[in-house]
Amino acid sequence: MAFRLARGGQRRILGRQLMSDSPEPKNIGTLLISCPDRRGIVAALAQILHGHGANILSADQHRDSSAGQFFQRIVFDTTELLTDRISLEHAVLEAADRFDMQVSLSYADYKPRIAIFVSQYDHCLYDLLWRHQSGELRCEVPLVVSNHETLRPIARQFGIQFQHVPITRETKLAQEQKELELLSEHNVDLVVLARYMQILSPEFTAKYPYRVINIHHSFLPAFIGGKPYHQAHERGVKLIGATAHYATANLDEGPIIEQDVIRASHKDDPADLVRKGRDVERAVLGRAVRWHIEQRVLVWGNKTVVFE
Amino acid sequence: MAFRLARGGQRRILGRQLMSDSPEPKNIGTLLISCPDRRGIVAALAQILHGHGANILSADQHRDSSAGQFFQRIVFDTTELLTDRISLEHAVLEAADRFDMQVSLSYADYKPRIAIFVSQYDHCLYDLLWRHQSGELRCEVPLVVSNHETLRPIARQFGIQFQHVPITRETKLAQEQKELELLSEHNVDLVVLARYMQILSPEFTAKYPYRVINIHHSFLPAFIGGKPYHQAHERGVKLIGATAHYATANLDEGPIIEQDVIRASHKDDPADLVRKGRDVERAVLGRAVRWHIEQRVLVWGNKTVVFE
Amino acid sequence: MAFRLARGGQRRILGRQLMSDSPEPKNIGTLLISCPDRRGIVAALAQILHGHGANILSADQHRDSSAGQFFQRIVFDTTELLTDRISLEHAVLEAADRFDMQVSLSYADYKPRIAIFVSQYDHCLYDLLWRHQSGELRCEVPLVVSNHETLRPIARQFGIQFQHVPITRETKLAQEQKELELLSEHNVDLVVLARYMQILSPEFTAKYPYRVINIHHSFLPAFIGGKPYHQAHERGVKLIGATAHYATANLDEGPIIEQDVIRASHKDDPADLVRKGRDVERAVLGRAVRWHIEQRVLVWGNKTVVFE
Amino acid sequence: MAFRLARGGQRRILGRQLMSDSPEPKNIGTLLISCPDRRGIVAALAQILHGHGANILSADQHRDSSAGQFFQRIVFDTTELLTDRISLEHAVLEAADRFDMQVSLSYADYKPRIAIFVSQYDHCLYDLLWRHQSGELRCEVPLVVSNHETLRPIARQFGIQFQHVPITRETKLAQEQKELELLSEHNVDLVVLARYMQILSPEFTAKYPYRVINIHHSFLPAFIGGKPYHQAHERGVKLIGATAHYATANLDEGPIIEQDVIRASHKDDPADLVRKGRDVERAVLGRAVRWHIEQRVLVWGNKTVVFE
Repeated sequence: MAFRLARGGQRRILGRQLMSDSPEPKNIGTLLISCPDRRGIVAALAQILHGHGANILSADQHRDSSAGQFFQRIVFDTTELLTDRISLEHAVLEAADRFDMQVSLSYADYKPRIAIFVSQYDHCLYDLLWRHQSGELRCEVPLVVSNHETLRPIARQFGIQFQHVPITRETKLAQEQKELELLSEHNVDLVVLARYMQILSPEFTAKYPYRVINIHHSFLPAFIGGKPYHQAHERGVKLIGATAHYATANLDEGPIIEQDVIRASHKDDPADLVRKGRDVERAVLGRAVRWHIEQRVLVWGNKTVVFE
Repeated sequence: MAFRLARGGQRRILGRQLMSDSPEPKNIGTLLISCPDRRGIVAALAQILHGHGANILSADQHRDSSAGQFFQRIVFDTTELLTDRISLEHAVLEAADRFDMQVSLSYADYKPRIAIFVSQYDHCLYDLLWRHQSGELRCEVPLVVSNHETLRPIARQFGIQFQHVPITRETKLAQEQKELELLSEHNVDLVVLARYMQILSPEFTAKYPYRVINIHHSFLPAFIGGKPYHQAHERGVKLIGATAHYATANLDEGPIIEQDVIRASHKDDPADLVRKGRDVERAVLGRAVRWHIEQRVLVWGNKTVVFE
Repeated sequence: MAFRLARGGQRRILGRQLMSDSPEPKNIGTLLISCPDRRGIVAALAQILHGHGANILSADQHRDSSAGQFFQRIVFDTTELLTDRISLEHAVLEAADRFDMQVSLSYADYKPRIAIFVSQYDHCLYDLLWRHQSGELRCEVPLVVSNHETLRPIARQFGIQFQHVPITRETKLAQEQKELELLSEHNVDLVVLARYMQILSPEFTAKYPYRVINIHHSFLPAFIGGKPYHQAHERGVKLIGATAHYATANLDEGPIIEQDVIRASHKDDPADLVRKGRDVERAVLGRAVRWHIEQRVLVWGNKTVVFE
Repeated sequence: MAFRLARGGQRRILGRQLMSDSPEPKNIGTLLISCPDRRGIVAALAQILHGHGANILSADQHRDSSAGQFFQRIVFDTTELLTDRISLEHAVLEAADRFDMQVSLSYADYKPRIAIFVSQYDHCLYDLLWRHQSGELRCEVPLVVSNHETLRPIARQFGIQFQHVPITRETKLAQEQKELELLSEHNVDLVVLARYMQILSPEFTAKYPYRVINIHHSFLPAFIGGKPYHQAHERGVKLIGATAHYATANLDEGPIIEQDVIRASHKDDPADLVRKGRDVERAVLGRAVRWHIEQRVLVWGNKTVVFE
């Protein structure tokens, strides 16, 4: 959803080719950067944007002093750009080289493309599709992928293409390959695991680094692994939670994007915890996906910076 | 804080001898029971109380269907008792035998006696002493015990006796013995570990079963063990919490009484998490102690039933 | 959803005629009572149920000491009933006469029938229909009524009948009459105003006393009336909320069933508040409807007792 | 706690004279600005700071698009300042003139001086004094003022001067004058009304514009006025809250700084609500005071921007 400098990683530029006479949001750009903390970064970027006629609408920054790393998110308006997007990008890339930055730049006229992976639970899928339909999630949803047929009617309700990719232990790798082809075909930017009950292979997540969001039905790092609501019931906890995180090679240990909890008590049997859990899961996943889409999330090490 | 039947455990009766012309609360009794789930328990107890002229003010109950266990808390008014407390107790004990109940009965004219154990952090101590002074905690606090001198002035501020019991690896068991003697001398009913940085021996907790409350500065079972706020910072969690639980032989694994969380973000360094943690810790500990004092907590297995 | 005694009001008995060899829930009865606080009520009801062979599964009670009123909710199992439902009801009604009780009794083999009223906002409708479909709300939804055509496709998605009843200032009373006929035709027990943008006449709400639930998109009693999110933005509040309440003749002033809030900040423009508000609204409405359906709500004066 | 430009208001410079070889925080400056939204503001300030050798540590900004107003908070390190504080201030003031800014600049070697006003409730006073003592609030507390003698011992516990200024209807204005003299004598920057049960005159608040923080024991704008917990109980609300706001001439209507709520139920009588309220009040007030002290709060119209 971005370009990244050679030094800092790959480059991707989204949106440049889409400029047209679309309405105002087309003029909104978002710049995300992360680099070793040095003097003058803020001034340099402000100067570049100002010099090109871009108006800074908002700027959030964070300094992780133990890591010595600097993070910034700048939203700017290009309506009165004195030059053009390409010149601006060149200037940003030059600064990026100078400060050893990872850079991601995107324009609001590009809508990220999301594939939703599900199995048989419907609550997260309904919630994401409703949020998308309501305009809350500014993205395209070209595809729902599932290892079961169960939720096809819901995708159809919302007019979204549904792909059944059944998976057995034997076919897993081949079927993952098929999934990857679907993602590529549909130019998918982000995969959302909306209670998808298959563990992705490290090869899969490596292809979409920090571009696969999982909802874990627990307050990580408590209750890692299966049946967390039963674990929670067994332990007699007074709160249950949910965690949205980027999926990485290590199951349930990727960078956490968002968490929330809901109150529980001795009155709740495992079924009640599951019911309460559904509400937290969909709320947490909805926020994490929105923040990712709006380019509010930066990853550093195994943690996230979220510019809410 | 209770009597317990031979079948179900020990018996303790508190408050009976204290009856006097003290004001109205003296007439309030609280009955806590736990027994295998059988038909007719509720009716039997209601009948006994009604028959003796006790007026039931409130009754909460819980049925743990997987454990097949029944729990009830009944608060009653003895102002118009047709008999006397002793007859009532006898009738309750007979029912207890019949239903294989654990029973605890107490009267509001008895104030439980609490010892607070601390080390060097003052926030939980201040909070408990303030809540006690404000009348929020209906108890006596005869004693603050510490392995450091640091907090003596706070105990003095509130007019509470402070006992310094320094502990080294070598003296630990002997000093614990001294602590137990202090507790016995002061007829202590409940020990509150208000950020007491020593691990109690299994012998100690065995002497005060479910009568030692600890505040764990983390959302258990996440971050068991030391420096949980640093662990939380390392893991990049978006919420931090605190857990009040009964201390048992297994560190940090006793029955949970109360938990809460507070929102955190990438902006919080470990010191911020510690600051936020202080607020959650004292709130959670304050509630747990109040509920215990008000006889709202029942333990079954490794879990609690809390009749809030 | 209940019967009420002559003294206390109307009587309604639901579910008796439905007894059949349906599965186990058919044997679950729920008794709600409210009466002037007197000695012996708890014992009398426990005795009646026990005497008829009904097993009390849970019993919650509340005593409003300033009003001198007593409230109780008893859930019981009739599997081993020694008599039959009719005998049990007679005995309950006799006690009701004796204690001047309002009584409501229902069996789980009766599913309350709900009509959902909407206008053009879809989030509450989606949420209720999803909760219903998922089994979270044990009820029938025979009907969606709207003064607009907008949401017909959603009702169709879920296979629910949709009735368009357009309303203008001139046709309002006549159209309300039509709505009342629809409710009567479909034997509706509860009307849920899921962001229905018409004010019901006092005649309408009088026909469904405490059987119309409204979601107010604000934390009442703040921001009564229209455009509360704009009012909240104007006032610069740091939390926004939602309130589910029974609709009465006085707009926005009926008994409150449930409320919740979500954090807001200067960053939120009115559109953000509306977005956040949607999440609180549907959560709050979902809980209120579930509690009503599960017979957990009692009304006294202008307040509710909610046995969660 | 700041200087303000002639155009935007008064100027105050704090901390300049205190520079010494004190430890590192002395080098931290905080710049708060507010001005009509124009292009180039961010770049201009970044350039000034960078040009003088100040290193920007963090920068938060907000744009209120309906008001057309821009807000920014910049924290910077002056350790390697190429010039000196006075030159830097001059440059900032020039920019302030150019952009029609209100400016406030302070250095961390200046600790704001706070007077706490109380009546007879002690919970907020204890809490503030404990937070101060624990280092959580970086300020001086030279003075506690009260219209009662009740809380003198608490001030003494913490070694803070206590001034009794009794107030009757007749003496009110004269006594307020005396209070103002005390504030002036002790160079007080901020007055905290920690449940001070007297209404300040408009003359008083006009002397300390946005420098008097009040805790209102309610979730404003609900329950404005007296006895809000009784009002809340009467209305049967399911949440109670507290609001910290700047005191202005209009009682309870000044800009809101922070709010929070706690769950309530039918079980809570007014005394329980008061108890719960105490916990919310002190938490909310503690945050508001800390944010003010750390220069995180900007006022615009009747609203605040809080850079948490």
